[in-house]
Formats: sequence, structure tokens, C-alpha cells
Amino acid sequence: MRIATYRHHNQRHVGQVSADGLHITAFDVTPDVAHHGALRLIEAVMAGGTLPALSSHTVAVADVHLEAPIPVPRRNIWCVGRNYHEHAKELSTSVFKDSNTNTQAWPIVFTKVPECVVGPFDDVQLPGAAISDQIDYESELAVIIGHGGKNIKAADAMKHIYGYTIVNDVTARDVQMRHQQWDMGKSFDTFCPMGPWLVTADEMDGTHTRVRGVVNGEQRQDGPTENMIFDIPTLIETISRGITLYPGDIIATGTPAGVGMGLKPPRYLQKGDVVRVEIDGIGHIENKFV
Amino acid sequence: MRIATYRHHNQRHVGQVSADGLHITAFDVTPDVAHHGALRLIEAVMAGGTLPALSSHTVAVADVHLEAPIPVPRRNIWCVGRNYHEHAKELSTSVFKDSNTNTQAWPIVFTKVPECVVGPFDDVQLPGAAISDQIDYESELAVIIGHGGKNIKAADAMKHIYGYTIVNDVTARDVQMRHQQWDMGKSFDTFCPMGPWLVTADEMDGTHTRVRGVVNGEQRQDGPTENMIFDIPTLIETISRGITLYPGDIIATGTPAGVGMGLKPPRYLQKGDVVRVEIDGIGHIENKFV
Repeated sequence: MRIATYRHHNQRHVGQVSADGLHITAFDVTPDVAHHGALRLIEAVMAGGTLPALSSHTVAVADVHLEAPIPVPRRNIWCVGRNYHEHAKELSTSVFKDSNTNTQAWPIVFTKVPECVVGPFDDVQLPGAAISDQIDYESELAVIIGHGGKNIKAADAMKHIYGYTIVNDVTARDVQMRHQQWDMGKSFDTFCPMGPWLVTADEMDGTHTRVRGVVNGEQRQDGPTENMIFDIPTLIETISRGITLYPGDIIATGTPAGVGMGLKPPRYLQKGDVVRVEIDGIGHIENKFV
Repeated sequence: MRIATYRHHNQRHVGQVSADGLHITAFDVTPDVAHHGALRLIEAVMAGGTLPALSSHTVAVADVHLEAPIPVPRRNIWCVGRNYHEHAKELSTSVFKDSNTNTQAWPIVFTKVPECVVGPFDDVQLPGAAISDQIDYESELAVIIGHGGKNIKAADAMKHIYGYTIVNDVTARDVQMRHQQWDMGKSFDTFCPMGPWLVTADEMDGTHTRVRGVVNGEQRQDGPTENMIFDIPTLIETISRGITLYPGDIIATGTPAGVGMGLKPPRYLQKGDVVRVEIDGIGHIENKFV
């Protein structure tokens, strides 16, 4: 099932996308529930309930403004750094220079604030050169947690996934580097385009799909998720060690090689650039940088 | 004014603490508002409203269970690393070994998840030696944001502070180090004792107070906030560069020298240890590690 959050006639809805991807039917929920997109639905299902009934309100996807499936996550988004081998190499003299990329025993985990999420086709605001002139893209598969828990074993981890979506983990490289910890350089307003919807885990396997990043029509990134250094079950096991995960928690699983900073010379995003992130089994998001 | 969140007869309230610190009078609010402690009150005041009226429900502080003034912050807590000169020195061969402690131009900023907050006298759960055997304390002054904003100038920053509280930024040192990014090692369940209440900014000046940390009766930390490397206005200016701050956002401003890892040899917390954090003008929190 694909669950989308969207605006239609200036009101937010959460609904089910049709099999052909052309229509959305709203769930029959109160505006308060719809305000949180898929979040309250996931929480209700995990609490033992069922998804709400569908309403009779069906519209064409082309006629709505798609929003992130969870417009404001319940807390900062968990993000994983350096999780594809080729990407580790391309940044081995910059972001990862203090690390031994051959023997990394543990994933790098940081966060992005919930309020930097924007919709799958919304604009991303460049912060201005005085704040950062090294804005970069990172095309990523995001896992949405269903059943929460603590100290989840890798062998059980896939059962804790409610679904998947796409994010662009937009990054201000200069800010990322100068503060040593990355959360700030990852959390500028509008720096997390997400969508176009969530695809439930029964419909796709995040461990066997492919993440592509395309800038102004030029494909820059193309990574099979089998190439992750730490696979999805390991990420869930790692993050839940001592830390309770909750339904609706989001984990962005890292980006393949081909980011702007990894090019020689680096090529950062400029006003008017359009970045598209595609993942097989989900679809794509596409955002203009303004 | 001191605003406390507390349980009495198994119900959560938010109230005003009397001048002598002995009694609390509940604000006249719905359970939904009280559920969020001081958060909804701060949001309402910043939206142009006033604090709710006080009810006739006054109880002795000794008869209530004090909780964190904001029991679950609206998003991850902003935290600052290496923000007192002597603390930078004591960890210069461990946590900060890759940094030049003399020429640090920008603060180190990371986060703790909202759900790791516990009350000012609640127990902190040691995660077990299989997960971490290097649990450490960090006594800190926390700033609670009132008026939000983006790109706040240091000269205006103090006007954006609603008040102050105390946190213990409990840290699993081994986990902090091995993941390179610190959020995970800082975010274990129960790893953010907070309280005993918030003191509004008209009643104290966070830039001129003193932070003490006491372990099992032995004073280990004692730092005047004038010794911060990056003062509070600079922290607010820095974090709000490109990132909107919201009412109720919390910034933990870093810890003075004297943490367990800085001792020779290091002394980590053990089952039964009691850590007390005191800040002049606020009071103290005291938590047993179990």
C-alpha cells in the first residue's frame, strides 16, 4: 500500500494511492489526525488498531499538492553517514578524513530536525552565501519504523519496519565540517524533501532496491542498497541499543557515491538547480533549489 | 517566576512555585495542556497570549513528584560540546583529540532525543555493560527559548530566552566515541534528567551563574558560566543560522571541567551512584543511577 499526505482545496488529507499511481482516496479521519499525515495512522495500527476506512473522496494525484508522508516527524530524523563503500571513498579526504574507512566497526549516526521536512516537489531554500555556499544533495532511502522497541536484534529488525520513503538529506558542507558534529549543517529550514509517499514494507524490500540521484537531468548517483556498509537490520539494531524507537521514527540510511562534494572539483548546488531522487519501488521526488 | 511540572495524586499538573520554594499552585489548564508541562504555556505566551490563571489547587512541593518542566521537548534537545575552557583541556586526548582546542572558531552542536528526558529526582537507568560501561555525567545550564526565530543576532539573543533549567547531559563515552557523531551516546533512555523547574529569564541571568556537579557527595564540577567558550548569545546566534528556533526549544550549554572521563584514571558511574547538579538561581536536581 502507498500512503500519501497531500493538500487539496487547501486542506490536508492522508490517503491511499491507487495501484496505477494516478489517484488518491482520502482516509476518513478528522483534520487533527490528517494534520500529522501518516503518523497517527501508524501509531494507531501499532497500538493494535486498524487503518481507518477510506472515504468517498478520490482525486487525481495530478490535482493535489503532495506533502511529505509524515510532514513533521515526531522527533529528529535519524540519519546515517558514510554507508556506501564508494561514497566513503569519495569523501575520504574531506568529511571522513579522520576515519579509517576500511575498518569502520560502527555506523555514523546523526540527526536532522523534524521541521526541515518539506514535500516531494517543494522548493528547497538556499540559505544565502553568508551562511553557506556549499549546499549538497544526498539521495537516500528512508525507513519508517512501525513497531517500536529497544535493543532490537538485527534478525528481528525487518519486522519493525512499517514502510519506506525517499529523502534528500540536503547538507551545507561547510557548516557540517566546521561544527564537527553534523546536525546543524543538515538541519537548515527546508533541507529534507521527503516523499512522494510511503510504501508499506509488504510491497517492497528496502534491502534490494536502487537509489539514484539526478541533478538538472544528469545522473550523478546510482547505488543498489545491497552496497550499504551497514545493512538496514544492522542500522535498526544499532540505533535501538539503549534507545527506544517509536512508531513513525524515520531512519535515513545514507547516500551512494556521486554527491557534489565528491566531484573533482566539487560542484555545489546553485539557484535554479533541480535535484531528483528516484528509488525503485517508491517513485521519485524532485526539488528546485531557490 | 518558577514554573514546575509535577504529578500529584497520579495526575500531571503545571504550576507556579511559591517565592519560598515550598509550595506549588497549579495553573488552571486542561489535562491536555498540563500533559506537555510548560511547553503549551510558553507557546501561548509567545503567540501573544498570557499565562493561564492560577487555580486554587496549592500543594507542598514535598508532597508532589516533580517532573521535567517540559517532560517531552518538541524536538531533540540542542546540546553544546566543549564549551568551557578547562573541560576542553581535560578531554583533549579523548573526545576532542581531533580538534584544535585553542582556535575553535565554531561551537560543537549535537542533540539528545526528547524521550530521554526524566524528572529532576528520577532514576537514570544504566544500560548494562554489554551496551556501555562508560557512563558519565555532564552538569549543564539549559536555556529554554521563548520567542522563536531564524538568523537571530547575538545582540538580540537574550530577548529570545524564556527561562533556564538544569540538565545532566548523561553520556555513554564509548558509544559517543565509536559512532563519531554523538547523538546516540547521548540519547539512551533516561539520559537527560531535567529540572527541578524552569526559572524565567526576568529572575536570573544565565550568563552570570555557576554550575556545580556533585557525585556521591564529592564536588567534581564547579564552573561559572562566564567561563563558557561560546557565550549564550553566541550559541543562539549560531544555532539559529539557517535553522528556525521555536518556543520551547531547549539548548544545553555545555559542561564545566570535572567529568568522570577527565579524571586520571577515568571514573565512570556505577550502580547506586548519585549525581547532583546545582545551579545558583535555579536549585538542584539529584539522580540515582540504577
